[in-house]
Amino acid sequence: MKILTFLTDFGSNNSYVAQMKGTALSLTDANIVDITHNISPHNISEGACVLLTSVPYFPAGTVHVAVVDPGVGTNRRGLVITTRTQILIGPDNGLLIPAAKHLGYFTVYEIVNPKLMLSPISSTFHGRDIFTPVAAHILNGVSFDQIGPIINDFTDLDFGKFEISDKTVTGKIIFVDNFGNIITNIDGNHLKKVISYGEKIIVLIGDKQYTIPFVKSYSFVKKGELVAIIGSNNFFEIAINEGNAAKKIGIKQDDVIKIIF
Amino acid sequence: MKILTFLTDFGSNNSYVAQMKGTALSLTDANIVDITHNISPHNISEGACVLLTSVPYFPAGTVHVAVVDPGVGTNRRGLVITTRTQILIGPDNGLLIPAAKHLGYFTVYEIVNPKLMLSPISSTFHGRDIFTPVAAHILNGVSFDQIGPIINDFTDLDFGKFEISDKTVTGKIIFVDNFGNIITNIDGNHLKKVISYGEKIIVLIGDKQYTIPFVKSYSFVKKGELVAIIGSNNFFEIAINEGNAAKKIGIKQDDVIKIIF
Amino acid sequence: MKILTFLTDFGSNNSYVAQMKGTALSLTDANIVDITHNISPHNISEGACVLLTSVPYFPAGTVHVAVVDPGVGTNRRGLVITTRTQILIGPDNGLLIPAAKHLGYFTVYEIVNPKLMLSPISSTFHGRDIFTPVAAHILNGVSFDQIGPIINDFTDLDFGKFEISDKTVTGKIIFVDNFGNIITNIDGNHLKKVISYGEKIIVLIGDKQYTIPFVKSYSFVKKGELVAIIGSNNFFEIAINEGNAAKKIGIKQDDVIKIIF
Repeated sequence: MKILTFLTDFGSNNSYVAQMKGTALSLTDANIVDITHNISPHNISEGACVLLTSVPYFPAGTVHVAVVDPGVGTNRRGLVITTRTQILIGPDNGLLIPAAKHLGYFTVYEIVNPKLMLSPISSTFHGRDIFTPVAAHILNGVSFDQIGPIINDFTDLDFGKFEISDKTVTGKIIFVDNFGNIITNIDGNHLKKVISYGEKIIVLIGDKQYTIPFVKSYSFVKKGELVAIIGSNNFFEIAINEGNAAKKIGIKQDDVIKIIF
Repeated sequence: MKILTFLTDFGSNNSYVAQMKGTALSLTDANIVDITHNISPHNISEGACVLLTSVPYFPAGTVHVAVVDPGVGTNRRGLVITTRTQILIGPDNGLLIPAAKHLGYFTVYEIVNPKLMLSPISSTFHGRDIFTPVAAHILNGVSFDQIGPIINDFTDLDFGKFEISDKTVTGKIIFVDNFGNIITNIDGNHLKKVISYGEKIIVLIGDKQYTIPFVKSYSFVKKGELVAIIGSNNFFEIAINEGNAAKKIGIKQDDVIKIIF
Repeated sequence: MKILTFLTDFGSNNSYVAQMKGTALSLTDANIVDITHNISPHNISEGACVLLTSVPYFPAGTVHVAVVDPGVGTNRRGLVITTRTQILIGPDNGLLIPAAKHLGYFTVYEIVNPKLMLSPISSTFHGRDIFTPVAAHILNGVSFDQIGPIINDFTDLDFGKFEISDKTVTGKIIFVDNFGNIITNIDGNHLKKVISYGEKIIVLIGDKQYTIPFVKSYSFVKKGELVAIIGSNNFFEIAINEGNAAKKIGIKQDDVIKIIF
């Protein structure tokens, strides 16, 4: 089974996604999976976060095409990244890098071979004209040395380091989900070594301060109350049981968060 | 052909749905169909209504995973429900029950076998770690007695009974669709015995009263006018031809509606 | 590989799309692709534009079901349109026509054969009860003469003609995408004959006037600045680099646009 996923900021009220899917199905018989098309427009970091948390669950051999691409039409390069198990394809703007690091043993190819692209190539839609056909050709078995040269000066991106000291952990907000749950870059395994379930922690965001119970799941507190948990992707997370924590606290992506315990 | 559907309240701007699909495709080669991921967060009743009205159209053997699960991480049970033709999987909070009753001859299994789950299991995402892998194993042919014990004390849910008397029908609003059409729990077959197409009826919602023609389809009235019909799922429905009735009337789910004829 | 696409204005928070997909999968083993379900309710012209720009990328033999159907339940006819390579199915309200003209050599059949439909047929959901089962039967090989008579008096639709004179081009706005990019009916190939990349043009929309550089892609101007380009579907387009041009200028579909150069 050939699996091809798409992640974009194209939204879902237009034909851009369908144009990519039609292009793919014209070249290969892949099983197409949408990761999402609702990344905030041009938000590379948000796209990288969603891609990072999606790829661990896909089988070996899956090819992911990710397109959050404000630099399309300039001389920013297009990339194919091979990893231990899966393939990532998209623009050289950092979007693919956190997922590549997570999957491990990665090699970055610059896409230069015009035989793997549509013709003509538009200046504004490389997702359709370059990334998707390259993905289809890779699923059909084209060898990686046909893509272009291996490069090492790709655009890097990470979600910053969190810091654990004696009595505090400092990190930042990397994502807000559909429920308003606030997801940080603080690793759950590290945190569990210094805080125990059942403890209350003090959380500082901006000039606001909250005392929140650290528990296993949302419903360990009453409906409407703040709760601190390790989320399903092993990141520290602040939520409201059956409510919207992001709206209540009024945070945004990249805000600094400090935990005192 | 193995068919696996997903219905959730996860929204479509994050990786949760992709994590479930990746998990499924890592275990089986199913054809995945999205019912919806835009159930209002935590709205079990809305999820149950959308599931109920979707399942009648799927072929025998289809496996449906439904996740609207505010109680995740507590001791609420996970269920596999076999019916005459299709399989339903999700939390024991009523979400699956209207669909199960509709499909008929249903048996409820509690999911207890850890061999059918991912490991480790997060406290906040049983859709990915339990329901999806169980679905994949069932599609792969695992026998139902491997799941866990049959139970009878599952959480029930229904959309209430409507009442037909001499001159009135009383029911409630169970769903508002994308067009603003107001869908009630009043059965169309019963209604057609007491009202004829072409009649005018009086509809009471809250303290408002409307006189509305009861006709076959939206465009039997002028653009912008209220219309009462039997909708495509055989429920009584109030709409505005090419307009949004829910916005105009200002109703919400579970509001009582009374028809006088 | 059988490919079946769906384009509707049903939205994605309800069961209507799932009912169509279940119906299709009960009759055939097609690979289902969503074009979009987020056409503005009842906006036939917007649906026609998205269908037109999607179909060129799909392989020969693809069957497209499009349902933006305010006239459902009246005597408006249902159509199957064969073209040189692909099949279009939907209501006789113009929705399919621009795509049919683009694909070329098209023949319009009226759907009359009840054997190809579900039974009973609802008055409000021909997408599920007529168009989808007809699509499945066509994918299964039913011959076109089984559908119904060939007709020539179908409802036509086009996006209007643009006019190029000595110093001006006049057209109209046919679509606004997820980024707020304003797409017009002005053909890029014609425009490139009279304007060169790098020139500044004067754009008049309503009573507003803008001087905008005409370049190859969005990022040829600074972030936040207006830019005029030929978009990926070869239509003249006004955008803001990493911003929302439609919001800033305040336009709507069908507004007239005039370019002076």
